[in-house]
Amino acid sequence: MTANIPTHPPIADLADRIARAQAATQEVGANALLITPGPDLRYLTGYDAVPLERLTCLILRAEGDPVMMVPRLELEAAKASPLGELGMIIAFWDEVDDPYRRVARMLPDRGWVGLDNHMWAQKVLHFRDAMPEVTQGLAGVVLEGLRMRKSADEVAALRRAGSAIDSVHERVPQWLRAGRTEREVARDIAEAILEVGHARVDFVIVASGPNGASPHHEVSERVIEAGDPVVVDIGGTMPDGYCSDETRTYAVGSAPAEFVEYYAVLQAAQEAACQHVKPGVTAESIDAVARSIISDAGYGDLFIHRTGHGIGLETHEEPYIVAGNDEPIEAGFAFSVEPGIYQSGLHGARIEDIVVCTDDGYERVNHRPRDLIIT
Amino acid sequence: MTANIPTHPPIADLADRIARAQAATQEVGANALLITPGPDLRYLTGYDAVPLERLTCLILRAEGDPVMMVPRLELEAAKASPLGELGMIIAFWDEVDDPYRRVARMLPDRGWVGLDNHMWAQKVLHFRDAMPEVTQGLAGVVLEGLRMRKSADEVAALRRAGSAIDSVHERVPQWLRAGRTEREVARDIAEAILEVGHARVDFVIVASGPNGASPHHEVSERVIEAGDPVVVDIGGTMPDGYCSDETRTYAVGSAPAEFVEYYAVLQAAQEAACQHVKPGVTAESIDAVARSIISDAGYGDLFIHRTGHGIGLETHEEPYIVAGNDEPIEAGFAFSVEPGIYQSGLHGARIEDIVVCTDDGYERVNHRPRDLIIT
Repeated sequence: MTANIPTHPPIADLADRIARAQAATQEVGANALLITPGPDLRYLTGYDAVPLERLTCLILRAEGDPVMMVPRLELEAAKASPLGELGMIIAFWDEVDDPYRRVARMLPDRGWVGLDNHMWAQKVLHFRDAMPEVTQGLAGVVLEGLRMRKSADEVAALRRAGSAIDSVHERVPQWLRAGRTEREVARDIAEAILEVGHARVDFVIVASGPNGASPHHEVSERVIEAGDPVVVDIGGTMPDGYCSDETRTYAVGSAPAEFVEYYAVLQAAQEAACQHVKPGVTAESIDAVARSIISDAGYGDLFIHRTGHGIGLETHEEPYIVAGNDEPIEAGFAFSVEPGIYQSGLHGARIEDIVVCTDDGYERVNHRPRDLIIT
Repeated sequence: MTANIPTHPPIADLADRIARAQAATQEVGANALLITPGPDLRYLTGYDAVPLERLTCLILRAEGDPVMMVPRLELEAAKASPLGELGMIIAFWDEVDDPYRRVARMLPDRGWVGLDNHMWAQKVLHFRDAMPEVTQGLAGVVLEGLRMRKSADEVAALRRAGSAIDSVHERVPQWLRAGRTEREVARDIAEAILEVGHARVDFVIVASGPNGASPHHEVSERVIEAGDPVVVDIGGTMPDGYCSDETRTYAVGSAPAEFVEYYAVLQAAQEAACQHVKPGVTAESIDAVARSIISDAGYGDLFIHRTGHGIGLETHEEPYIVAGNDEPIEAGFAFSVEPGIYQSGLHGARIEDIVVCTDDGYERVNHRPRDLIIT
């Protein structure tokens, strides 16, 4: 289903992103952004390098051309990536060189640099030692603003990811049977995530019965029993880098009465929070809409996490839908709306869709039914 | 095949690792190690948390009990992990708290702390700001020494991983056919990596024809042609966290004569480097053995990377088998031996096994034939 989807954006779009990032770097007064493999590098250059111990780093200077520094064994891969078509300067280092000093020599020895938010500490400290008079800040202050505002192509990519994970949830009821372990079900789901077109499985949560009360439970050897509610929260990365993330709650055969009761509250809260989304509302107000419905029904203490997170080239990115975040939502922002209710020791429920803010409201990219699904 | 393999080590082993890490922390004079989700946390505690933007952090103090700080929504998962059985103190923070200040208050406000080598820059800088007078170093100076010395159980885990990835390579010839794209073959391989018992696919390199000359090429839409040499370098993570990594080079139908010639040199180099492994030899001497055979045959300039990397809970870890690393190899060290020869624009070859140093020599955990495999 993804055979004809390019794995990187058009070169002109990448060039535009780099130009905007450079302008923003000048604006915040940084010497440069130092971007290591990960979603920021992929966003700016289309180069999907694996984060490893060797230094691969885009040096996006406030003044002058950007330079891509790669280990020699990555040189061919870098040239074959969109970096080649972008005409970017690619420098390489050998196994016995010190690449951090090489980067330091390209930059002023005072001022500040913005480090990739996900750069590993070992690289952060190597850069600190190579540039002792330079203050280290985060590249996110420049890049988060760019990445939050999704283009039409990016929204289309999120729709494809949403549709792919929908088709996995469609098959979940056939695997979710009493007598099977969570791990067995998760294995079937992981294989399906790849089959429907993802390039990578990012997470598979199958949280049955009391495990459902733990939002970050993944899987266990627990044998699923008749009457268990089961939270299934799954996602992967598509070949173009965009992520899927969707939660549905199932019940095996039947569900306890008190569970059915709070599930209805949860469903109303998730629906209301989605409907609240439009340009100009704040991130925290979306959280507040879901939270007030759950609190008014008496379950406020059981909703123990924020309502959502941004999504794009990362499963979790800005904007976070949480109390204290007064960022106004704009058209093109994409994020999860995923309230949950967790009854410690008994069971839990969560409903999650990815929502994109449109010019006058919202669009969900996930379309599986949100009613409690009895398997 | 992995149904009865525990996903974490015995609690007594974890307690012993923590005690040794604490003793080593005292020895290097650090206030504490700060360990975020990843292989170090899993090694010390068996807690396999996903690295996310929220702070989850083991505070392993030189003096006093260790404390695990988790976001509230992870509390149940943390208690259900071996942390519970270990009796570790688990502290939690709410979505609107500042967890970095909470950690800072548990530690001296002078001296130095060892940060998880993979801690994200955004967390590194939050800790820097919360402890402005404390110098930041790396936890690796303490933990690399522990993790390099694999126990008998860890070696058994690497054997299981090796055997699993062997069974994927066994099936590769049936998928590697002229007319298929690298991406199609990679998809089959990724599904098989899960089928044979891995919990996660870490990487799938299918580098055909000229793409084989790029060691870090992953996959492309290139259609594989008759006569192509194809480098297949694949690996995943088993449910117990231990990684597999094995490279074999195939040829579709036949191979060019000059390729067959250098492949024989490569095979001899890989064999000699493995046979050189025993306690007391240096890491760099293993690299030198492979390199000298390849250089003597006139291909030295085409072997553009180090000979190998350690492996365990990470695919790449200490010890690195590279010029300049005079670390003496000990029984229990586990690492790849993977020389390669790369003819830019034409083709390339690499042969990789994971090797464990034994009391008097070496053991390979991969057993697929190393001859050029004609499919």
